[in-house]
Amino acid sequence: MPRFLVTIRFDGTNYHGWQVQQNALAVQPVVQDALFQVLGVRPGITGCSRTDSGVHANMYCFHFDDTGSIPPQALVKALNTKLPEDIAAIGCAPVPTDFHARYSVRSKEYIYQIYNGTVRHPFYRNYSYYVNQSLDVDQMQQGAQQFLGTHDFSAFCAAGSSVADHIRTVLQARVERCGPLIRFVVCADGFLYNMVRIMAGTLVQTGLGKLSPRTVGEIVNSGRRENAGPTAPAHGLFLNRVIYPDGILQTAEIDTGFAKGWL
Amino acid sequence: MPRFLVTIRFDGTNYHGWQVQQNALAVQPVVQDALFQVLGVRPGITGCSRTDSGVHANMYCFHFDDTGSIPPQALVKALNTKLPEDIAAIGCAPVPTDFHARYSVRSKEYIYQIYNGTVRHPFYRNYSYYVNQSLDVDQMQQGAQQFLGTHDFSAFCAAGSSVADHIRTVLQARVERCGPLIRFVVCADGFLYNMVRIMAGTLVQTGLGKLSPRTVGEIVNSGRRENAGPTAPAHGLFLNRVIYPDGILQTAEIDTGFAKGWL
Repeated sequence: MPRFLVTIRFDGTNYHGWQVQQNALAVQPVVQDALFQVLGVRPGITGCSRTDSGVHANMYCFHFDDTGSIPPQALVKALNTKLPEDIAAIGCAPVPTDFHARYSVRSKEYIYQIYNGTVRHPFYRNYSYYVNQSLDVDQMQQGAQQFLGTHDFSAFCAAGSSVADHIRTVLQARVERCGPLIRFVVCADGFLYNMVRIMAGTLVQTGLGKLSPRTVGEIVNSGRRENAGPTAPAHGLFLNRVIYPDGILQTAEIDTGFAKGWL
Repeated sequence: MPRFLVTIRFDGTNYHGWQVQQNALAVQPVVQDALFQVLGVRPGITGCSRTDSGVHANMYCFHFDDTGSIPPQALVKALNTKLPEDIAAIGCAPVPTDFHARYSVRSKEYIYQIYNGTVRHPFYRNYSYYVNQSLDVDQMQQGAQQFLGTHDFSAFCAAGSSVADHIRTVLQARVERCGPLIRFVVCADGFLYNMVRIMAGTLVQTGLGKLSPRTVGEIVNSGRRENAGPTAPAHGLFLNRVIYPDGILQTAEIDTGFAKGWL
């Protein structure tokens, strides 16, 4: 059967992450329900990654196999009439049958958003981590540079992770400010459990002047979780881009929304 | 007793507007409850305007009288520990006892936000009106210019309004685009019931090519509600600034959040 890759965007506020959970609402079964209503069958769907409770996705991908009786663009349209308002289908494309939404990923980009105003902001409450002490973005940017390259990121992996190999390559890392909003953007070939949230928590310490950018590099080298900062809360985290091999879902074609205007 | 002017910001999604309602949650009683917890008394509070169910405020003002035992800045801080996450106090200042949060208003600025992407956007679902057909912002901007000046705005007043005088002066009106977001910004010395939402609904018709900018001027002159466009939904509307006489709450001091980064 032909395989299809679907791109969605979701507000994770009301979900316990992507993957099916017992007694808790997850994104995956809600998407499967919508597919069932459109296709008349309930296909198994395979997501590009696990996501934590409350984490958002500006771009999330999954694949499924189907007869392909509904053309991709019509499927997107039909899905959007069945999905709840906090999940939107933004694209669908046929892919080779050996394509895998998770294993074919070349790299992923996450954004961690911080609201650094003098008073907490109601509109950003579910989409940013509120830090009320002034953050030095230059220091955070310098700290973020320490993540670049190939390292053992054990210091940035939550306890309880079952993954043995902690070596990852960070391709891009930067911190930018837009008014009271601060964004940490990080792209890597893979991420460990809570990696971005621990990086963000560590960069906040850097922005507060509690850790120097150089110390961030030393924390990476130490490989010890206890040296890094606290895990920043889930609701500031967005999966922003999923990058596949050339020819599969050119991400430039996807309007991630974030590129032009800030949330 | 001294009089104080408090500035708040609220996400109106979960509220049936500002004013107390029977059997429906409103912003005003929630603020009064928080004041009661801070002051030990439950003062009467007077807001700067009524707001509809689902309408947001980037800046909303109310006054109340109190002994002033708590300094204004401490009051703001204390209020924020008692208010729910979707309401934030952003300022408090003493004002003359003849100041009135509503009657002393010189002008108000509203923003009506439209999301004009190819697919609805989960993060903007409560903060914008989704229009999926392409809108011509230049035409909308030209249409908005027709509102400028002093006019009888009867064509932009919902039926059922009890206000007899429909003459208002629009001081500023513009339409701007930031990626898929479109904003109609309008400042006037006063607004009729649903005036901004009917203006927005009419400008959407202009952006769709169904009404020319010139026709918008003719609709203003006609004074007939049935000539204007539909009332755009409440959740795209934000009260953005409340402007009082010089010396009272210089709005430049208030970080409205919207000024620097888009929502």
